[in-house]
This record gives sequence, structure tokens and C-alpha cells, in this order.
Amino acid sequence: MNLAHRRTQSEISFFIQSFVAIFAICIYSVANAADPLPSWNSGPAKQAIVDFVAAVTDESGKDYVAPAERIATFDNDGTLWVEYPMYTQVLFAFERVKKLAPQHPEWKTKQPFKALLAGDMKTVGASGMKGLMEIILATHSGMTATEFSQEAGTWLRTAQHKKFKRLYTELVYQPQLELLEYLRTNGFKTFIVSGGGIAFMRPISEKIYGIPPEQVVGSSVVAEFKYQDGKPVLVRQPKINFVNDKAGKPVGIYQHIGRRPLLAFGNSDADIQMIEYTMAGEPAPACHLGT
Amino acid sequence: MNLAHRRTQSEISFFIQSFVAIFAICIYSVANAADPLPSWNSGPAKQAIVDFVAAVTDESGKDYVAPAERIATFDNDGTLWVEYPMYTQVLFAFERVKKLAPQHPEWKTKQPFKALLAGDMKTVGASGMKGLMEIILATHSGMTATEFSQEAGTWLRTAQHKKFKRLYTELVYQPQLELLEYLRTNGFKTFIVSGGGIAFMRPISEKIYGIPPEQVVGSSVVAEFKYQDGKPVLVRQPKINFVNDKAGKPVGIYQHIGRRPLLAFGNSDADIQMIEYTMAGEPAPACHLGT
Repeated sequence: MNLAHRRTQSEISFFIQSFVAIFAICIYSVANAADPLPSWNSGPAKQAIVDFVAAVTDESGKDYVAPAERIATFDNDGTLWVEYPMYTQVLFAFERVKKLAPQHPEWKTKQPFKALLAGDMKTVGASGMKGLMEIILATHSGMTATEFSQEAGTWLRTAQHKKFKRLYTELVYQPQLELLEYLRTNGFKTFIVSGGGIAFMRPISEKIYGIPPEQVVGSSVVAEFKYQDGKPVLVRQPKINFVNDKAGKPVGIYQHIGRRPLLAFGNSDADIQMIEYTMAGEPAPACHLGT
Repeated sequence: MNLAHRRTQSEISFFIQSFVAIFAICIYSVANAADPLPSWNSGPAKQAIVDFVAAVTDESGKDYVAPAERIATFDNDGTLWVEYPMYTQVLFAFERVKKLAPQHPEWKTKQPFKALLAGDMKTVGASGMKGLMEIILATHSGMTATEFSQEAGTWLRTAQHKKFKRLYTELVYQPQLELLEYLRTNGFKTFIVSGGGIAFMRPISEKIYGIPPEQVVGSSVVAEFKYQDGKPVLVRQPKINFVNDKAGKPVGIYQHIGRRPLLAFGNSDADIQMIEYTMAGEPAPACHLGT
């Protein structure tokens, strides 16, 4: 009589259950390994991504691309996180106007600040891009780089979306998070290339997307090197340095990354030039995902 | 009688030799592991680097810095490669004037181009920074980003230093190559932060320093997105976009990297602000190496 024959019924049942459980885990793992994008609907977009990644990572294939050249760029607003009812950064600017108002008595009579402080959003909207830019510049300058980073970071870690009652940093798209991770697993370097402010996104890009500050490309204000109380600081000026939007996106990619992306993702007409520039690359074809 | 007793004299001699050889290899390996910077002279500079790296990588120590924050920035000319008798990029610009002269008949009468084409370096020198900038802009613009990258890359892969009779890309400082590698081995991300042209350095930075294009920060000209024969291209304009020198270096670091360096290396007064900015960082002290 060997050990196996001496097992009780419950012991045998336990063994069968364990076997089934382990088998189930194996099946799940295989299925998971075969589907790195579980939140994506099956269809041509998902298939195109998976086929493209397989082609450029196949060392023996004709479309192989060395890891160093595997650059993927992502728009942010509406592509990686929520952009309705308003760009998150615009809401941040509006709230900063209210916070800074006591230090700016002139805003009581100056538009569009006066309207914003009175809650008259119709007049704010009528001030157009010019008015919005005045608000952005007034609220994004006049402090050191470190101070702005802390302001933006603190706001982003606490501000809630009115409708969803969730932090803005939680309102990111799960399929895109899976895509970022999938691409990095396949040797891609992932970048944000956004019309939004570079300094606004950087405090949270690593935490919410796994994208470090140096891989964030965005719009910026001029910064000046100065000494404050003998200490070297960078002071943000109320002047646009670069607008990383539309035709500015390929320019921003050139100046910041210095390589043409192999993949580019966006959700609006502000991403067209970035995608055109990406698709004009050689030798591997780029993959364009419409929305 | 066991096996050992049956060995011949020559076999025993071989064993002893092998033991000595293996022992020597061990000693060499230990010595090498203990000295990651073999080309550096022993002294306070080398000791400061090794101590600093040990402190910031010791997870249980009070000066520990997470790998993501381990940013090291290096000046290029005179720090990583040769800068005498003249900046390599200036020589490239001078040679391009000669190459492009047939397409620019106006240079026959226009200074400083006329003097340069006649080999009258005194007059070229007398034209000062203004004249030099004219030469740089004229030779670094008017083509696509791809064309310029190919021009610079081709020149750098073939041009020889007159005195040393070696490629400029071979005239890099061995101690700095060891330092770059040592820092990367210890989790640092290494960047070039140079007054030189970003697009001039990028074609060779990966090959000669192991620094990818996206980790090169430098001066730049304005680039414009256009369509040429229906194809999207970036055209380099004869207009300065950013001067990444002196007080521009910390600004370039802010806009491009978005983190304060933990270590910064330079060889001239053009690096002072970068080093001051680095040393003003918290919490770990930065390490400044004078020359």
C-alpha cells in the first residue's frame, strides 16, 4: 500500500479542487498573455495595434525596428484622460483666479477676470481665446518653477470632477493605460505630446501614466533664471514660450524628442499634424487610430 | 591511495598554475569592481563622485534618492569631447560655407562669408559673435530636419581633427565615458546639456556617449511644419529658437527634463548657472567638480 492509497476521500477531493484551480489559473494566464489589451473591444483598431507591435518587434521580420526607435506619442486631453465639460487645466486656471483675487484688486474691473469672479461664464466665453490666454498667463506665471509645480500638483491630487465625483487623476481611460503598458513591455518609450501645459502635467504624469516628466512634451511659458535672496531660481514669466498644438506638435516632437514617432495617438484635429508627421516616417508604417 | 596521490609532477604544477591564474583573475576582478573609474586619478574629485553615488544609492541611508530622480547633466564641448582649436560645430559651419558657396553668389561680397571663403580668418574673427551667428544660421537652416541630421551625421562620421588626425567622434574623454557608464550602472539617467546645437549632437550622441537623442538638450533654431510635395516636413528657419548656454542652461533643463539634476558636470563659466541650479536642490547635495 503506498501513500496515495491511504488518502481519505476529503484529501482526494482537495487534490482535485487544487488541480482544477491551478488549471484555471493556467488557462487564465494563457488567455491574458494572448490579450494584453483586455479592455479593448475586438475590432480593426485593436488588431492593427497588436499586428503592428508584433511586426516591429520581430527581429527576423522585414519591419523590425530597434527598441531605441520605438517612440510612441500620446495626446493627453480626451486621449488619455477626460476633457469634458472643460479642459482640466482651464478649470485649474479658473480656480486659481478665485484664489489669487485678493492679491489682484485690479481684477474687480478688468475683463475677463471680473466676469469669472462674478460667475458670468457667458462673458468669459465671449472673451474667446484671447481672454482665456490672459487667464492662463496670469495664473501660470509670477512664481518659481518649484512653486508652480507644487500648486499644480496639490490641486491635481485633491480637485474633483463635478459630475463624476472623482479626482481628475482617476478619470483616465483604462484602455489607454493598458496600451501604454503594453507598448512599454514591447520596448517602446512612451511620451505625452499635448497642447496642455508641460508644467501642469509633469507633477502627476509618472504616477497616473508611468510617464516621467522628461517624457512630457507640452506648451510652455518663458522661464527666466534669477537669484532670489541669493538662491538661483527659475521664474515663470507671463509670456508664451511655445504652443505645442496642431502644427506645433511635430515641432515639439522634433525639438524635444529628436526622433520621429513610430506610433502616435490622438482624438482631435489638433493631433492631425502629429499623426501625418508620424505616418510619413520610414521604414516601418505608422499606425493611425481614428476615434 | 586516492586520485590526488596518483597525479604526476606536471599535473600538480598545472594545478598550481591554474590556481595562481584564477586567483589573479579574482584579485583583478575585485580591484576592478572596487574601481569603476580606472582612468581617473586618485584624488578628491574621484572620491567625491564615488562617495556621492554610494550615498544616493544606499536605500537604508539618509541621502537615498530614488532612481527616477537620479538625473546627471553633462556639458559637451570641453567636458565630454575636444573643443580646441575651435568648437567642432563651428568648423562644421565653416566647411559648409565652402560647400554651399556655389549656391550663394552673394557671399562673394558679403562679410563675414567673403573673408571665410578667402581664408582670411582675422576678418572672420573680427566679425565677432554677430558674424559667427550669421554663419551658423546660414549653414544650419533652409533644409528639412531630416536633411540637416544627415548632413551633420555624415560630416561627423568622416571629418578629422587637423592635429590629432582622428575623427572628432573619437576625441572624447575616456574618464568621462567611464563616468557616464558608472552613473548609468547606478541608476542615473544621463543628459547632455550643451550650448551647442541640439540637432548637431543628436546624430552621434547615442553612438559615442550612449546618450539617446531625446536626452540631448542644446541650442536650437526655429523649425516650421510644412508640406513639401504633399509630404509633411519640418523646415529649419534662419532664426534662433533658444540659446542653451549660461543662464539658458537651467532654463533648458527645466523645459526639457523637468527635474533638477542631482549631478552636473561642466568645464567653463558657461556651466556656472547649471551647476548653481543643481547645487540649490533638495534633499541630496550635488557634487561640483571644478577643472
